[in-house]
Parts: sequence; structure tokens; C-alpha cells
Amino acid sequence: MPDFWDLHYAQRVQLMKSSAIRDLLKLTEQPEVISFAGGLPAAEIFPVEKVASATQKVLQERGVQALQYGPSEGYRPLLELIAQTSSRDGLTITPENIFIVSGSQQGLDFVGRLLVNPGDLVLVESPTYMGALQAMAPYGADYITVPSDENGLRTDALEEMLALKPKLMYVLPNFQNPSGVTLSLERRKRLVELANRYGVPVVEDDPYSQLRFEGEPLPSLLTLDSQLRKSEGEPYRGNIIQLNTFSKVLTPGLRVAWIVASPELVRKLVQTKQGADLHTASLNQLIVHELLREGFIEQHIPLIRRTYGERRNIMLQAMEEHFPAGIRWTRPQGGMFLWVVLPEGLNSTELLREAVKENVAFVPGTPFHAQGGGENTLRLSFSNATPEQIREGIARLGRVFHKALAETAVKA
Amino acid sequence: MPDFWDLHYAQRVQLMKSSAIRDLLKLTEQPEVISFAGGLPAAEIFPVEKVASATQKVLQERGVQALQYGPSEGYRPLLELIAQTSSRDGLTITPENIFIVSGSQQGLDFVGRLLVNPGDLVLVESPTYMGALQAMAPYGADYITVPSDENGLRTDALEEMLALKPKLMYVLPNFQNPSGVTLSLERRKRLVELANRYGVPVVEDDPYSQLRFEGEPLPSLLTLDSQLRKSEGEPYRGNIIQLNTFSKVLTPGLRVAWIVASPELVRKLVQTKQGADLHTASLNQLIVHELLREGFIEQHIPLIRRTYGERRNIMLQAMEEHFPAGIRWTRPQGGMFLWVVLPEGLNSTELLREAVKENVAFVPGTPFHAQGGGENTLRLSFSNATPEQIREGIARLGRVFHKALAETAVKA
Repeated sequence: MPDFWDLHYAQRVQLMKSSAIRDLLKLTEQPEVISFAGGLPAAEIFPVEKVASATQKVLQERGVQALQYGPSEGYRPLLELIAQTSSRDGLTITPENIFIVSGSQQGLDFVGRLLVNPGDLVLVESPTYMGALQAMAPYGADYITVPSDENGLRTDALEEMLALKPKLMYVLPNFQNPSGVTLSLERRKRLVELANRYGVPVVEDDPYSQLRFEGEPLPSLLTLDSQLRKSEGEPYRGNIIQLNTFSKVLTPGLRVAWIVASPELVRKLVQTKQGADLHTASLNQLIVHELLREGFIEQHIPLIRRTYGERRNIMLQAMEEHFPAGIRWTRPQGGMFLWVVLPEGLNSTELLREAVKENVAFVPGTPFHAQGGGENTLRLSFSNATPEQIREGIARLGRVFHKALAETAVKA
Repeated sequence: MPDFWDLHYAQRVQLMKSSAIRDLLKLTEQPEVISFAGGLPAAEIFPVEKVASATQKVLQERGVQALQYGPSEGYRPLLELIAQTSSRDGLTITPENIFIVSGSQQGLDFVGRLLVNPGDLVLVESPTYMGALQAMAPYGADYITVPSDENGLRTDALEEMLALKPKLMYVLPNFQNPSGVTLSLERRKRLVELANRYGVPVVEDDPYSQLRFEGEPLPSLLTLDSQLRKSEGEPYRGNIIQLNTFSKVLTPGLRVAWIVASPELVRKLVQTKQGADLHTASLNQLIVHELLREGFIEQHIPLIRRTYGERRNIMLQAMEEHFPAGIRWTRPQGGMFLWVVLPEGLNSTELLREAVKENVAFVPGTPFHAQGGGENTLRLSFSNATPEQIREGIARLGRVFHKALAETAVKA
């Protein structure tokens, strides 16, 4: 018999799927499991005391503002500070270009709400961040994909997809989640040029660019688009919507992120926010503003980079040592994730069951594929586990993979 | 020429309207304006030091949990504590009945998302909270209204509206926003009975029930429904969705609220939250949990009640003194708002322009009317202004009303 509520849900609820990551995190919450599954920052380097002192300061000096309702677009001094630090390399950003959201996931939800009609095509990389797929699916997005390689999404395959007139394109250019790869400069330029030619809005999701521990930083799509438009000196008005967050450079539990976009789009985002949740928590915005103003966040980032760089190295080394031949993986220059490709015929979802028996976890690759495929792929996070856990966890995974390959060989 | 973005918006964007309250707040932000417009709590009684000490405590004792990602349904100890204190008077609430949202506005948005298909009828009181209308409009809600009087919505008019098979009903039973009236016990019972007979979900928005400064508390629709179902001892599974918030009993800037509903519905709400913004800020939930656990919030509420009760008295007295004959108003027993009915023919939106010239502001009544009307009504908030400001502001408003009536008399 259907539940009372089953008879009442709106059609869009059928399009919602429970996040595989979340359900998996539930399964692997036991302390004995070494999890490379969640996209969690390293908690042991959270600047807890710094957050505590900034909180005391803002409550002492601006207690009423920190605890009262605030404007939907965000705390004005925070908008001003972000605008000021974003205006460089030919890019001019004013506070009217900026909008505070409660985490980048909310940015994705709002973009879907504003731009996606049921049946609209949304162009994404393959693989791509499953949270983006989940955010826009309830608005009726139909996903189409462009393949990627070790230099990011393949712009040689982009034009034929743009010719299908997608409503928007969603891209993660730096240390992509899940693959860890970075879009090359040449491809960035080509992407911006093509998006302009076809008049397609581009969501540039950029949570990790400051977490580069190797190689040279590359200009963002937003910067390249502004240079192409020669729009320095006037507020950015192009078709890039850039999502940024304090979750990875400070802490995720504050839920403060920001969008950079055309002032016209920002005004609509503000209206959306009014109906959706009024505004992002004032206290959290003031804490972030204080830590940004003091220059603390900039001082803190090198510690995150060092920590993640060291963990990536340990993971890569352990993989060399423990993984059987025939398995390939990416070598990210930053961020939190790397991507593993198993020999054809191995199924990473099935292997996860075996891995959990060995008390180690990862995310299978299929949910990152909007149009199916990727059964032999998986994502490993190197940011959250300690060096000891990484060595031990990769050794356990190596055993699981060796066993699976041996069984495949027997069958064949 | 249309802006680039005008060509790209989804159809539902046409259904979004900028909140009149918000736009108005912008206009009346100058310090010389005495504003009875915004629904702002009294900031001078915010427990700033208590929030500061609770924040220090949670960061010291549970810093990692406060700053890391958390579960979409909310911080488990907070769910448990709320469940425990909610289980009484024949109502059994488990943590699975509870879901944390970033303010009640997010609850309204999620309810719209889960239940409203384009063209669905949504039954609301007239007048009703404009933020609810704004939250559900983008999902294509078509509003129908049931009139209210000094005892709340008129249940004698309810059955014919329920016969139109609305998808859901939205009700504010206590010290309603905007009217300040409270639904009588008899009508509450009738409403619950009818909603059950017609199988209609009821959203019970209850931000103010603890702010009663006069008269006896009445049982919630949730409690009455549970008693009707004789469901004590098992988790509530009825058709009431109750929205509650810490915004009015603690501070709104933390953005922590909660929904009580059937566990089946809560599971769908959790999925919605995953795609929408992952979870409500961990730090904020831990702060609220600490203040609730310590018993502080319960200790703090009497101060809010006294303050608002005193301000309501001052406002009512000043209105008696300064408002011309022919103007009527409600006498709320709690909450933050009262409702003014001007003589027919006066237009409160036009009067607002005159009022702003006199440096005093209110919200005109029309945006609270889902099906039009209410041109001669307006809402006054007595929670935020000081006693001196209330006396002076009401005197100014009295002059505006006297002048308007005199001009009407000349014309006639």
C-alpha cells in the first residue's frame, strides 16, 4: 500500500536521487573503515582557534549584525572585500557581481532553478561532479557529455555538442572532481571562444584552484572571457558563472560560498535566495569576513597545500607499490581527488562490497557519468585520511584488486 | 534590447517576484526612518554573550564536528533533544520525525518543491504570510484563499475550499503574520478533522507560539492531529507538516529551524536538502544545541515575551491616542505583528509614500492577499522599535492618516 505521502509528491520528486556518496558515507562511518570515499577536507588542520577568536571579535564588535537578519545578496563588507581581491588580470569585479550562497551546492541548485526548463540539455564533462547532476536533475535537465582526457575536457569534441544548443555547460577546470585533471590553457581559451560563439552560459565550478601544490596556476575561464571581451574597467557582464567557496580553504561547516556573475544574473539570484532561504547565516559571513580581512585565509592555504601534496605523494607511492599491473590512475597537481581506471571487465561497484569487507572504501565511478559507463572506474580522495591510513588503506585496496584480477583470470 | 540572461531564464523565473518587504526595507534603511515594516526581532535583547560563550564551548569541545561537513538531516544530538522535548500531550516525536533547515523559509521552499506541481491549488488564509506565497509560486502554485476573522481562518468557509481538492493547505495558527490573530481551539479541531477527511496535507507554520504574552496556550494542529489519530507511543505519521524556528526565540542570524513531519516525508526532505545545499551549517547547529541543552533558550524566552508585550501595549495605546476614528486594528496576544484596517477608499500603498516622507514605514496589506484585495489594510510590527520610537512613529502615522481622511472628505 502506498504511503500517504507517495500520493502527494510533485512530479519533480521522481527526478531526485539520493546521493550515492551520502548513502555510502553512512555505510563507512564505522571508525575501523579507512575511507577514501568522502570529499572531506583534513579536519586536523582546521583553524579551530582562529575561528573561535574571529567569532569572539565579531560578536563583541558587531554582535547585533552577526545575529540579526541580513540582506539576501550577502554581508556588504564581505561582498566588497571579495570584489576587491577578485579584480585583477583584466577582470573588473564589483560587489554587484557577487552573491553569497550557503555553499556551492546551493549555487548549483540556484543555477538550475534560474536556467533549466524541463527537457533542457545541460552539457557536462564525463566524468563530472555527481552533486551537480543531482542539483539540476529535479529541474528536468537532460545531460549530454563531452569526454575528457589528461588535459581536461576534449575541446575538439565540444563544438558538435554545442551545436545541439545546450541550455548551459558545467565545467570544473581545476583538479576536477572526480578525475583530478586540469584543463589546459589552450583548451580553456578554446572553450571560452566556443561558448561565446554559441551563446551558451558556462558554470565554472572552482572550489580547488587555490589548492595547487605543483605546477603553475592557470587563468580562470572568467578571466579569459573578460580578456576576450576587453572589458577591464567595467563590471564583468559575460556568460560565465563562477562558483567559489570557503569550504576548502577555510572550513565547510560554516557553509559560506560565493558566485561571481553578471550583475543582471546576480539580481535574479538574489530574488531566488529571498524565496529559498532569505539569506546565508549572518554570523558565518561575518566570521569569514574577519578571517579574510585579517589576511588569515591567505596565510592558512599553504598549510592545506602542503598537507594535501604530501598525502597525494604517499597515495601515489602506495599505489605504485600495491596495485596490480593493468590499473591506471591520474596524477593531480592539486585538489583532493584522483581517479583510477581498472582493467575492462572489472566492476568497481562490486569491488566496493569486497573493499568494505576489508574496511576500506572509495566511490565507484558510475554516478559521475551522466550518460552511463565508467563501471571500471573509481574515485579516491587523498585529503582526509592520515599518511598511515593512506598506506594501510591502499595496501588493503591492492589486495582487493589483486584478488579480483586473479578471479577474472581463472574465469577466462 | 534584452540582456543576454533574459533570453536564458527558465519559465519558472517568470513566477518569481521580488519580496515587497525586502524592497521596502531597502527604502527605509535610513536611520531617521522609524520602521514598523520589517519582521525583525528586538536586537537589543539578543543574548550576544551567551551565543559567544556557547560558541567557545562547542569549538573547544567539538571543534572538528562544528567545522566539518555534517549529515543532511541535521546534527543528531540536536534532533534527539528536539524530539525529546516535543513528545508530550499525546504526541510522540522521534529524531526520524525531525529535519533541520536553514530557517523556516527553506522549509516552505522544500514543501513547495516536494508537493506542488504547476497548476496545483494551494489553500492559504487571507491575509497570509507573503514569504510563503513567494516560496511556492516558482513551483507553479495557484493560490486559493479562505477568509479569516478575529478567531483566525473561518472553518465554516473551509469545507467548500477543500472540496476543490487543493494540493496542500498553509496555516499560521498563532499570532498570525500579518494579522496577529490566533486560531481558536474549536476551529483548530475542525480544521484537523476536515483536513483528514479530505486527505489534504497541512503546513502548520509556527514561529511565534512561544511568544505569547497574554492568554492561555492552545494545542498545535500537530498535537490535535496526533490525539485524533490516537497515535501516542508511535512516531507521528499524519498529514501535518509543522515548521518551527529558533529565529524568534534565539536569533535569526544563525538560520536554524526545524520541521516536524512523518518520517516518510522527512526522508524525502533530506534528499531535497542533499541537492539543495547539503546541510545546515554545523557550527550553527552545535551552538543552538548547546544553548538548548543548557536550558538557556527556555530561560531567555520570558524576556522576549515581556519586551514584546510591553511594546504591543505601547503601540495599542499610541494608536488609541493618535489614529483617527474609523480605523480598526487587531489586539494580538503574542507574536510580533498587528493588523490595521483603514476606512474603505483609503489605499495603504499610496499612504506608504506619504508615511516615508514623514520618516515612518509599514507594510501595505496587498502582498499578503493571494487573490487580490486588502488595499485598505496594512501590517505594523511592534517587536523591533523601542518604546520611544513606537510612540513617535505612531504619532507620525496618525498625522498621515488624519490628513488622508481630511483629503478624502474634501473630495467627497
